[in-house]
Amino acid sequence: MAETLSPMALAFAEAERAAARGEVPVGAAIVDAEGAILAAAGNRILELADPTAHAEMLALRAAAAAKGAPRLVDCDLYVTLEPCAMCAAAIALARLRRVYFAAYDPKGGGVEHGARIFEQPGCNHRPEIYGGIEEGRAAALLRRFFRARR
Amino acid sequence: MAETLSPMALAFAEAERAAARGEVPVGAAIVDAEGAILAAAGNRILELADPTAHAEMLALRAAAAAKGAPRLVDCDLYVTLEPCAMCAAAIALARLRRVYFAAYDPKGGGVEHGARIFEQPGCNHRPEIYGGIEEGRAAALLRRFFRARR
Repeated sequence: MAETLSPMALAFAEAERAAARGEVPVGAAIVDAEGAILAAAGNRILELADPTAHAEMLALRAAAAAKGAPRLVDCDLYVTLEPCAMCAAAIALARLRRVYFAAYDPKGGGVEHGARIFEQPGCNHRPEIYGGIEEGRAAALLRRFFRARR
Repeated sequence: MAETLSPMALAFAEAERAAARGEVPVGAAIVDAEGAILAAAGNRILELADPTAHAEMLALRAAAAAKGAPRLVDCDLYVTLEPCAMCAAAIALARLRRVYFAAYDPKGGGVEHGARIFEQPGCNHRPEIYGGIEEGRAAALLRRFFRARR
């Protein structure tokens, strides 16, 4: 069933599942050059007691494991929130081709904000970046989550 | 036996083991507030086919798993090379207290070079940083590794 969803729809489904687990609702999906889904994941920081278990990191690791190689050349990432500096740097290490993200994250983002990882002179790899896709939906999902927990 | 080594000596031992596996020789160890070793790891990027499997990330994840919590408050990291931007951002997310590193990494480092993660205005947490410890030993280890592979 998941296979019939677009990669961004799959990322949103993962974000909703993360929220249901009490995790900040962020989801990610990685597709190969033909558009086939390699991996999808949502945040599991609390569940795994792992500060690095952001949706993007889990999807990156699963996609690399699926390919049997630490580089994801010609693969694209879809994620519901602007990646943080950790995830952006991991994206550069993995050599992803494109990153599509939904909501901008002025506070925690590391792509268009903060460390602006891909704009650093020494950055080893710069994917194409497309931000703001379905931004309203992603922002509403995050707002709903944080409002419910206040 | 490993328990009798200082944390930095343990990190160097992990770096040597990484080299023996054909991985870039970087090792890391994490200690708790009492100085007890929580985790130690070397690079396993090729072995695990995981672009995020830097020594620091593996040690962070293992230490957090050992504590059963995604934050490593009052814990310190020892690592043989200046952390990259990914690892530095993960260190901030994990709230480590101190980072002791050996060799500076002008090309790939993200602490004193490149993204300078902890100097970003929005950085959520700034550990104390002590760089250049046993710098010569760490640099020689890396030089030896890369020379042998040329």
